[in-house]
Amino acid sequence: MKGHGTGNDFVVLPDPDGEIELTPQLVATLCARHFGVGADGVLRVVRSAKHPDAVRYAEDAEWFMDYHNADGSLAEMCGNGVRVFARYLTSYGLVDAARFPIATRAGLVTVEVRPSEISAEMPQPTVGGESVARFGDRDYAGTSADVGNPHLVCPVDDVSTVDLSEPPILDASVFPESANVEFVASAEPVPDADLHVRMRVYERGSAETLSCGTGACAVAAVVLRTAGRETGTVAVDLPGGRLTVTIAPDRCLLTGPALIVATGDALV
Amino acid sequence: MKGHGTGNDFVVLPDPDGEIELTPQLVATLCARHFGVGADGVLRVVRSAKHPDAVRYAEDAEWFMDYHNADGSLAEMCGNGVRVFARYLTSYGLVDAARFPIATRAGLVTVEVRPSEISAEMPQPTVGGESVARFGDRDYAGTSADVGNPHLVCPVDDVSTVDLSEPPILDASVFPESANVEFVASAEPVPDADLHVRMRVYERGSAETLSCGTGACAVAAVVLRTAGRETGTVAVDLPGGRLTVTIAPDRCLLTGPALIVATGDALV
Repeated sequence: MKGHGTGNDFVVLPDPDGEIELTPQLVATLCARHFGVGADGVLRVVRSAKHPDAVRYAEDAEWFMDYHNADGSLAEMCGNGVRVFARYLTSYGLVDAARFPIATRAGLVTVEVRPSEISAEMPQPTVGGESVARFGDRDYAGTSADVGNPHLVCPVDDVSTVDLSEPPILDASVFPESANVEFVASAEPVPDADLHVRMRVYERGSAETLSCGTGACAVAAVVLRTAGRETGTVAVDLPGGRLTVTIAPDRCLLTGPALIVATGDALV
Repeated sequence: MKGHGTGNDFVVLPDPDGEIELTPQLVATLCARHFGVGADGVLRVVRSAKHPDAVRYAEDAEWFMDYHNADGSLAEMCGNGVRVFARYLTSYGLVDAARFPIATRAGLVTVEVRPSEISAEMPQPTVGGESVARFGDRDYAGTSADVGNPHLVCPVDDVSTVDLSEPPILDASVFPESANVEFVASAEPVPDADLHVRMRVYERGSAETLSCGTGACAVAAVVLRTAGRETGTVAVDLPGGRLTVTIAPDRCLLTGPALIVATGDALV
């Protein structure tokens, strides 16, 4: 099973009783673009009661998203991954509800499933202080934000002209574990959103990617703050498509398409 | 169905009666790395009798390899693709023979199937004159070769240090339709081969790739010629694995692994 949300793509691996020994090597083999199925990560579908990392959530959420990065490392959460995970659960009859919780390593995440879009309740972003990212010989000033993981949101006039071919240098006293760096530029108004922006992202430990769910949330929080608001809806256009972030006093909702594009079996 | 030969990967699309309208748009959708299945190209499996480009081969070869590049354009032949195609035919019971012909747009190609490797009879390479490829500010001298498509084979001391991040500039009077450029360096002797080399390739209209079957044949022909031979066996180590090329007076045999790595259905 393969799916994507705004170009973040995943192998969905149904393993309800947690019987597959999903080693880092197996994850890397599945995710290899030319030698395997090819994906940004693996979403193993396990019953919470059957996985030691999720058994404490078993009464609240039947299913645990056991997320692995393409290099075989574990990740706590993934805003696009959890939306693809939810699409799989409802499209294949494992869940019969439009709104339900999913267990993740970052806790319970509530999702809302509609035919064309899926929303996920993300951690409420916390906007922090100013810092600078150096790409090549250029410095970009930005505002830090935390969405469970660290971000630096840098406003620019035009995101298309930024060179993201090399990783940035960040201030290690502000970002001891590095950070994702988002570039954001304002765009023309669109219906149903208070603000509309374009965004590109360099993900830490990786490279420029087509989409980043937590990055979109960080961007939304910073541009709302810059506009003098604490809450509102921001349409965020990424290279992989549009995500919409709604920040309310009590929650941050990440909304966008999530599709299953192929079904099948890996022969590894 | 997805398979690869030394890292050249393909969507194998069974369509025995030629009923699928395989538009360039559909090919591009299937091959998109993040939004589709992801592959270098599509190998549609059609009965020769059912496809206008192959009906003239129907008495000799039951199956036609309808090959499409990832961008939706047509290609005549692909040395790694035809080996993956052969693996599919025998593994899924469409052919019950160890040696058989496959119809392609470049004519009939005979393949030999073994459990660990598949050989394909490629066009006999023709070694031509000298020319130069410029990558960045460096000129590389090489020998031209034709394997149905044009190549320039450039000997270097160490293939790992060549910068293939940008396309080359070639002599348009020698290569009016451009060419694939191969870099080749000699390597330590290995059993069962007269010569052993390492190779990297920049494919025209594309970029550096993990493997190129016709490029391996061009390299073999040039390094045999340089060694004062017209025939022999050359082990060619590419980034995606080892291909072995045997050049005899009457044929050129390309041998290497070819695997089906996943089965399933695209939902597009």
